[in-house]
Amino acid sequence: MAKAISDGTGAFYHHHPRVACIVTASAGGKDNAMAVAWHTSISFKPPLYAVSLSPKRFTYQLIVDSKEFGVNFLPFAAAEMVAAVGGSSGREIDKFQRFSIARDKPVKTMVPILKDAYAAYECRLVDDRGYGDHRLLVGEVVAVHLLEESFAADETLALDKVSPILYLGHELYVTTSADTVRSLDRKIYGQR
Amino acid sequence: MAKAISDGTGAFYHHHPRVACIVTASAGGKDNAMAVAWHTSISFKPPLYAVSLSPKRFTYQLIVDSKEFGVNFLPFAAAEMVAAVGGSSGREIDKFQRFSIARDKPVKTMVPILKDAYAAYECRLVDDRGYGDHRLLVGEVVAVHLLEESFAADETLALDKVSPILYLGHELYVTTSADTVRSLDRKIYGQR
Repeated sequence: MAKAISDGTGAFYHHHPRVACIVTASAGGKDNAMAVAWHTSISFKPPLYAVSLSPKRFTYQLIVDSKEFGVNFLPFAAAEMVAAVGGSSGREIDKFQRFSIARDKPVKTMVPILKDAYAAYECRLVDDRGYGDHRLLVGEVVAVHLLEESFAADETLALDKVSPILYLGHELYVTTSADTVRSLDRKIYGQR
Repeated sequence: MAKAISDGTGAFYHHHPRVACIVTASAGGKDNAMAVAWHTSISFKPPLYAVSLSPKRFTYQLIVDSKEFGVNFLPFAAAEMVAAVGGSSGREIDKFQRFSIARDKPVKTMVPILKDAYAAYECRLVDDRGYGDHRLLVGEVVAVHLLEESFAADETLALDKVSPILYLGHELYVTTSADTVRSLDRKIYGQR
């Protein structure tokens, strides 16, 4: 099948789904939360997590001030909350109050942990680096909060218990299809 | 619901699904491909894409030598190929030959573009930075290959036409559930 080819300056965004997360921070008595689609693990030892966000965001300033951030992963049932968090600014409102977002207590930092999250990380900022129009914030994961009933014995997400939020771009969200799970042993397939 | 709390040094990996991609590179007459779960966009202007991989990988050396890499996104039907690529090393075999992986021609670089990909990027390396046990490779996206029939008019992935590969951890893969797509206008939800 022939493909359309372009440079990267066009629709460089919506080519695949991404798990939506809520990045949280607290500084100067203010808590905030923002929706982030650009994020990934980047190291096992030490455990490092990177989030990419615009320096214009209120949350960015809170993270720079506090040197901490939280990363929260929510079930599909909370997609409306993610859209609300994504469509408002902490400069104007207290999102936790406005959207009735419940918090758990953090244990190693001051970052808000969302009660509805199936997994959440507390991170200490170890790097803040500009790449193009965004900043890449790298945090060492100093605490992990897990809703145990959402995970299988092998520590993968139990998709029959929890459905993650995937962001497709624009205003679209989707989740996984639990009945499509396949186990493909890479050692076997790699030896074919 | 009470959560289990631990530090980040344990099961820091499988807490949410990630779109699997195949990172490709070519140097010294050798092409290679590896499966990567840690990757994200990090800037719109210029368009930058970051992939995290171990410096022990054969592909890492090819990228360092050529200053280029490809990022390929494949349909769920190609999950076995991703497992095969993930379970073998380019130091020992030619994965393209062994697994009959067809290539499209790149247009701005020498990186292999996978014919089966619904989207693929050609990237020029602009940064190579160590974080913990991995390297974060940042590439400027200089060409985008898109299988047009896989995308809707608004340039989001058309999930009724193509199902992306999500990696759950260990040897597990899953895809999206097209009938769960929800459109949630963040401007409306953010004003509630």
